[in-house]
Amino acid sequence: MPKAIAINCSLKRSDGKDSSTDLMIGVVAAGLAQHGVEFTETIRIADFDVKPGVTSDEGDGDAWPDIRRRILEADILIFGAPIWLGQLSSIGKKVLERMDAFLGETDEKGRMPSTGKVAVVAIVGNEDGAHAVTAQLLQGLNDVGWTIPAAASCYWVGEAMGSTDFNELERVPDKVRETAATVGSNAAHLARLLQAQPYPGADPQ
Amino acid sequence: MPKAIAINCSLKRSDGKDSSTDLMIGVVAAGLAQHGVEFTETIRIADFDVKPGVTSDEGDGDAWPDIRRRILEADILIFGAPIWLGQLSSIGKKVLERMDAFLGETDEKGRMPSTGKVAVVAIVGNEDGAHAVTAQLLQGLNDVGWTIPAAASCYWVGEAMGSTDFNELERVPDKVRETAATVGSNAAHLARLLQAQPYPGADPQ
Amino acid sequence: MPKAIAINCSLKRSDGKDSSTDLMIGVVAAGLAQHGVEFTETIRIADFDVKPGVTSDEGDGDAWPDIRRRILEADILIFGAPIWLGQLSSIGKKVLERMDAFLGETDEKGRMPSTGKVAVVAIVGNEDGAHAVTAQLLQGLNDVGWTIPAAASCYWVGEAMGSTDFNELERVPDKVRETAATVGSNAAHLARLLQAQPYPGADPQ
Amino acid sequence: MPKAIAINCSLKRSDGKDSSTDLMIGVVAAGLAQHGVEFTETIRIADFDVKPGVTSDEGDGDAWPDIRRRILEADILIFGAPIWLGQLSSIGKKVLERMDAFLGETDEKGRMPSTGKVAVVAIVGNEDGAHAVTAQLLQGLNDVGWTIPAAASCYWVGEAMGSTDFNELERVPDKVRETAATVGSNAAHLARLLQAQPYPGADPQ
Repeated sequence: MPKAIAINCSLKRSDGKDSSTDLMIGVVAAGLAQHGVEFTETIRIADFDVKPGVTSDEGDGDAWPDIRRRILEADILIFGAPIWLGQLSSIGKKVLERMDAFLGETDEKGRMPSTGKVAVVAIVGNEDGAHAVTAQLLQGLNDVGWTIPAAASCYWVGEAMGSTDFNELERVPDKVRETAATVGSNAAHLARLLQAQPYPGADPQ
Repeated sequence: MPKAIAINCSLKRSDGKDSSTDLMIGVVAAGLAQHGVEFTETIRIADFDVKPGVTSDEGDGDAWPDIRRRILEADILIFGAPIWLGQLSSIGKKVLERMDAFLGETDEKGRMPSTGKVAVVAIVGNEDGAHAVTAQLLQGLNDVGWTIPAAASCYWVGEAMGSTDFNELERVPDKVRETAATVGSNAAHLARLLQAQPYPGADPQ
Repeated sequence: MPKAIAINCSLKRSDGKDSSTDLMIGVVAAGLAQHGVEFTETIRIADFDVKPGVTSDEGDGDAWPDIRRRILEADILIFGAPIWLGQLSSIGKKVLERMDAFLGETDEKGRMPSTGKVAVVAIVGNEDGAHAVTAQLLQGLNDVGWTIPAAASCYWVGEAMGSTDFNELERVPDKVRETAATVGSNAAHLARLLQAQPYPGADPQ
Repeated sequence: MPKAIAINCSLKRSDGKDSSTDLMIGVVAAGLAQHGVEFTETIRIADFDVKPGVTSDEGDGDAWPDIRRRILEADILIFGAPIWLGQLSSIGKKVLERMDAFLGETDEKGRMPSTGKVAVVAIVGNEDGAHAVTAQLLQGLNDVGWTIPAAASCYWVGEAMGSTDFNELERVPDKVRETAATVGSNAAHLARLLQAQPYPGADPQ
């Protein structure tokens, strides 16, 4: 059974409360659970002292090495992030930067620690920006080794220049649930295939 | 044996000549061939009367229906495109728009015609823009159903504000060949897995 | 009195009908008119045979040279475009590519034909993508010489995964009108300043 | 005489050393000085405890209120940032997010604290990504009130997949110096115009 983990790249600490990003992560996690994936946990990045940088350990109490280990124990990553200024949150970008180190951590077949693992994205904002964030995330995540299943983005934003939060809606819109079910089905299937038959990697040229 | 096809989204007609984009497509096709993929053909979009629009047939001599059929007969798409103004060529964008129709062509399990097929990108420019084009392409292609293997982008650009074309280099740089081998290995593996065990799709909610 | 012109980069020919992009262009034009700008015309690019390319005249009946002239007679450009796949329409991208030629058409002070002219953007879509399109347009337009006044983007999109068109709304939302008034005021002011006191350009180094 | 200030959004603290981003900021500052602008200082964001968030004061020792004040005392902002994963550094994104508060700090004419101020960008990376970063920055900065002069981006990146730093080059390339001179001339001119004749703002609708 594939395992999924989520990160929440909200700018705010949790302080015991769920954010709109958590709600969207939950919707996607439910879509995965419908398709036989075990969901382990959500890591709220802002609750930890993740240092800026592009190595796997920036020292000085850096929380990334432990988070990195937990992420890489799972088969599927739900990258959850809010939109700010129509773009990925700075904390989401910081996480991508920490994964940049994967490029230098290849095995003898050129495979990164993330090679063979599947990533999907869960995005929320008051208004516009989900496609821009998806583009940033898919390019960044794929660059550092993650595989992207068909239709890997589940998102919600309100009407242009609106200010409603996702967790203020009366209910999760049907289209969001349907999208999450598709994301879940595709990610679960792909993770199973890659678990059973890992990428062979390429011989050095 | 998986089959690959390429599209070349150069702004110019071929007039019997290969472009820099063709050269990069060739490098990626060689990377696929090393890993047992049959490469069929490159379609130079500018040679055909592909109409602008977001349906699968815009009528009036539209060349897209035939190109669409040929693309969907393959298991792997090499999306080849040049960079202009640091962004995807308009012809590349026109192709993405034609694929938008896939969203409305799902089967009873919500699967698009592209679901189960693998896309990689081959990008060239005189200078800067490859990551921006990759972001546009991965977001657009994934949105309309394509699966993205680990490390799916092979590109070359020169130094900032340079004007050298990729096909003016004395030889293809080693790093480009190495990247193409990795892209080829990952895409070939993923296409085989998805051919043998297609995405099951999701039941209607 | 500064003059403004608009281009509509819809994928469809006008056939005598206004599109949602036309409606948004009208809202922005009204914002400019409130601040003393003469609005001349909207050019629907799809109605003309604008060739793909990166020169100012691609020959063979190319409609761009005449459109280019009309655009450069105005002081302010309203770049109107719809969103497709969360990105700028391919016809919008084609127009940017044609303006790429400005980079090679500098005077002895390094000034492009667009230097001293002001651009603003008017964007519509059923859902999400306005910030991504704004980013593509501001980067592309600025690269080829246009000046961008404060808060230069006026847009509307509906809720995530929605399908309502802007011209199906009962009325133009207040926030859109307010934004258009600000865009109009800022663009009018900047165009007047640059008309009275053109950029001096830089001496060759 | 207009005043310029720079921010350096490198991921690393300065520890008394200049980064490649500092070098590029210096080149742009020299371009401004050639055109009569007084350059005040560069603020290395990583040297300060700038909290994540979208308000002007996140409390708890937040360094942003003081940096915000210094930025707003200048007429021109040089936004200096490195590229990571082909995108804006997370620290650059964090700064944009802090400026999001400007949207709520308008005067009775709808003018933000940044309205009437000019922003240009100074970007460096080992390879590809400058246009993507420019797009992110121009969209974000313009959204929160900054005016963008013609041709506002000065950047350097090496050949694709290269690893040379800008400050390892034997000399600053001529094209970079020429671009910086143009950026400097345009920004200086526009800042002078807007200093003498501020945006009037728009009346409430």
